[in-house]
Amino acid sequence: MTTELSPDAPALDGLLERARKDYEALAARGLSLDLTRGKPAPEQLDLSEGLLSLPGERHTAADGTDVRNYGGLQGLPELREIFAELLQVPAGQLLALGNSSLELMHDCLVHALLGKLPGAESRWVDQEPIAFLCPVPGYDRHFALCERFGIDMIPVPMTEQGPDMDAVERLAAENPAVKGIWCVPKYSNPDGVSYSDETVARLARMETAAPDFRIFWDNAYAVHHLTDEPTGIADLLGACAEAGNPDRAFVFGSTSKITAAGAGVAFFGSSPANVKWLLANNQKRSIGPDKINQLRHALFLKDADGVRAHMERQRALLQPKFETVARILETELGGTGLATWTSPRGGYFVTLQVPEGCAKDVVRRAAEAGIVLTPAGATHPYGDDPRDAVIRIAPSYPGLADLEQAMHGLTVCVRLAGYEQRTRQAA
Amino acid sequence: MTTELSPDAPALDGLLERARKDYEALAARGLSLDLTRGKPAPEQLDLSEGLLSLPGERHTAADGTDVRNYGGLQGLPELREIFAELLQVPAGQLLALGNSSLELMHDCLVHALLGKLPGAESRWVDQEPIAFLCPVPGYDRHFALCERFGIDMIPVPMTEQGPDMDAVERLAAENPAVKGIWCVPKYSNPDGVSYSDETVARLARMETAAPDFRIFWDNAYAVHHLTDEPTGIADLLGACAEAGNPDRAFVFGSTSKITAAGAGVAFFGSSPANVKWLLANNQKRSIGPDKINQLRHALFLKDADGVRAHMERQRALLQPKFETVARILETELGGTGLATWTSPRGGYFVTLQVPEGCAKDVVRRAAEAGIVLTPAGATHPYGDDPRDAVIRIAPSYPGLADLEQAMHGLTVCVRLAGYEQRTRQAA
Repeated sequence: MTTELSPDAPALDGLLERARKDYEALAARGLSLDLTRGKPAPEQLDLSEGLLSLPGERHTAADGTDVRNYGGLQGLPELREIFAELLQVPAGQLLALGNSSLELMHDCLVHALLGKLPGAESRWVDQEPIAFLCPVPGYDRHFALCERFGIDMIPVPMTEQGPDMDAVERLAAENPAVKGIWCVPKYSNPDGVSYSDETVARLARMETAAPDFRIFWDNAYAVHHLTDEPTGIADLLGACAEAGNPDRAFVFGSTSKITAAGAGVAFFGSSPANVKWLLANNQKRSIGPDKINQLRHALFLKDADGVRAHMERQRALLQPKFETVARILETELGGTGLATWTSPRGGYFVTLQVPEGCAKDVVRRAAEAGIVLTPAGATHPYGDDPRDAVIRIAPSYPGLADLEQAMHGLTVCVRLAGYEQRTRQAA
Repeated sequence: MTTELSPDAPALDGLLERARKDYEALAARGLSLDLTRGKPAPEQLDLSEGLLSLPGERHTAADGTDVRNYGGLQGLPELREIFAELLQVPAGQLLALGNSSLELMHDCLVHALLGKLPGAESRWVDQEPIAFLCPVPGYDRHFALCERFGIDMIPVPMTEQGPDMDAVERLAAENPAVKGIWCVPKYSNPDGVSYSDETVARLARMETAAPDFRIFWDNAYAVHHLTDEPTGIADLLGACAEAGNPDRAFVFGSTSKITAAGAGVAFFGSSPANVKWLLANNQKRSIGPDKINQLRHALFLKDADGVRAHMERQRALLQPKFETVARILETELGGTGLATWTSPRGGYFVTLQVPEGCAKDVVRRAAEAGIVLTPAGATHPYGDDPRDAVIRIAPSYPGLADLEQAMHGLTVCVRLAGYEQRTRQAA
């Protein structure tokens, strides 16, 4: 649901006056609400209550492995089987590892910085400065990893099909310092875009000046649908292999937003050479992942259909929240010309676009009224949204009543900031 | 129990002949036994069977935190309280993290290589080559981390009091490239030495040329006693603070050999500045450790006394195995002058010293007879024991009957290799 900016606002004074009064009333309510992070709500976590007493009496995997002892660097085969289909990675090329896919992305950067990737001429630290392409708006924690390791970030605009591939192809082809790209290919964070088949094909076959270019494919929302028609994306790993670039893709996923956030299992999938590379690195670092937790998950989820059924139950809790967000935005901001917003078909976020130069102002005013939002700019490298227009809304955690209050409050802040700006512009 | 080499062996021919026959008989038995790694036995893991259905219905920590959701980078306070006393780290300076202390050591190296440690002038990658002091014999996985990151290893001999502190002080003081030292301070791997108070005091107060020198204090066997008189070690963290070197010590520990190997909880303790540094790094990498597993452990272990009682049950299973090793070594090799060995008061290993130049030969012959031992040399940097004399025995995993067979076989191999060498020397 989107609306267009209508620069000619009649009775602007009246609109501003009403917004000011509404904001005063909002501030007087002394709210304390939080729309910042994509955290599951307690009711979502209750869906996995059964995990908490598993594996119970059992302590052997299907192949007889004692899950209580060291070993098994690849992770439990039965859990890898379940997620192979869902993450579009052959089970033999899929590793089940620790409790966080963000950790795996961090560690892949570390191992590439401090050791030679397949196809690399040297360690990345010996080639500094290096750079990553960052589709924007994007995920702040990806950008934070680049910043932490001194990896330059080159923004690339997102389109309805995924990142602007003309820009991606040009940047990847012309500069050997460009070592990778961050992608959230399905129901992207924050704007809910799913990459088109053409985008996936172009990513797989494009020329890259760096022989060790990697696509960090953060498939965080692979099964996190919000409609009856799940979106599918093309198989990047297969497309890379077919295009003669088998080692280009690192696929990441986790059960953090399926079972328990921070107590789930994370996955890494890639070419045989990359899997061997990560295993060799992991072998120095660890004597194996938490296989009891992996068995717990395999017993609880059972199979890919079990995951899909579980995600339907998640959707039943999440969909009303996304509908609430859409309804309030439409009711309060529809026709004002002050905002556009996304209607995601999955994932965890809604992106709200406010008039250029207003996002920080909206977030600041909301905070002053007790509604905490993700900082404006967080969706961009270095926290800098050059248009100062993008606000990320995370509706999953609050209860419906709180969410309704927070969204109402947010729209008041958008009206106030927007009409103040128009008034300044009209003066 | 140790014996002295007696170079004058009467009737050497007969001894060699008997060893050869014994070895033939051994090889003919077609054994398949493994003494390689310090893995808990299934009966030890059974002691923690209760963990497997915990936390059950409960999902909140003592402070009300929902352990199923993101957050809590420091780890669960109640679990940190339990291990603070056992690891000699104030709970406020102790972090409860993932499933492996080896991972934490790896990651501390990574963060020091790629970011500035408190007190550091620059990243370690910008100061390469750097070096670590490696008390020998030591733990092969420590050495593997150095090798993987290109950190030079400088061997320092172990004494009955810990590393030779004259050598450590000299090497640390004279060379700013020496950035750290590996220590297993209690029941050390592999020789079972516990550091004396004087050693701890000298480590804490010594001069170091590097302003960012770190002691990697791998207190893996803090509560892993094998006698009625638990060994205590001095408080390194406190000693470093008192000596004006508060940031020198990184303390590591885990429950891998307390509850479940690979499904336990690992700990990091240090000065407030170092803890802040690690938390800042972890915050980029993770949205928190597996708090469900931490709650599970807190509920199961209850308190420090609970851990001590649990370790008494572990000891009841382990002590007979160590006694078996000692008995067979004494019966078969006592008085031969072919070997000396340690009688550890805790930990997981026995170190067997065979005549110089014989260790590899013994390990090879044992493997050919179906008895797998830790590779000779693994206890030294780069897998190179210059005397080729040290063999690490890990008695925990096999059942008593298997252990007895394996130890018998091992002593046969020692006699064969030893008497062959004497025969060559006599020729």
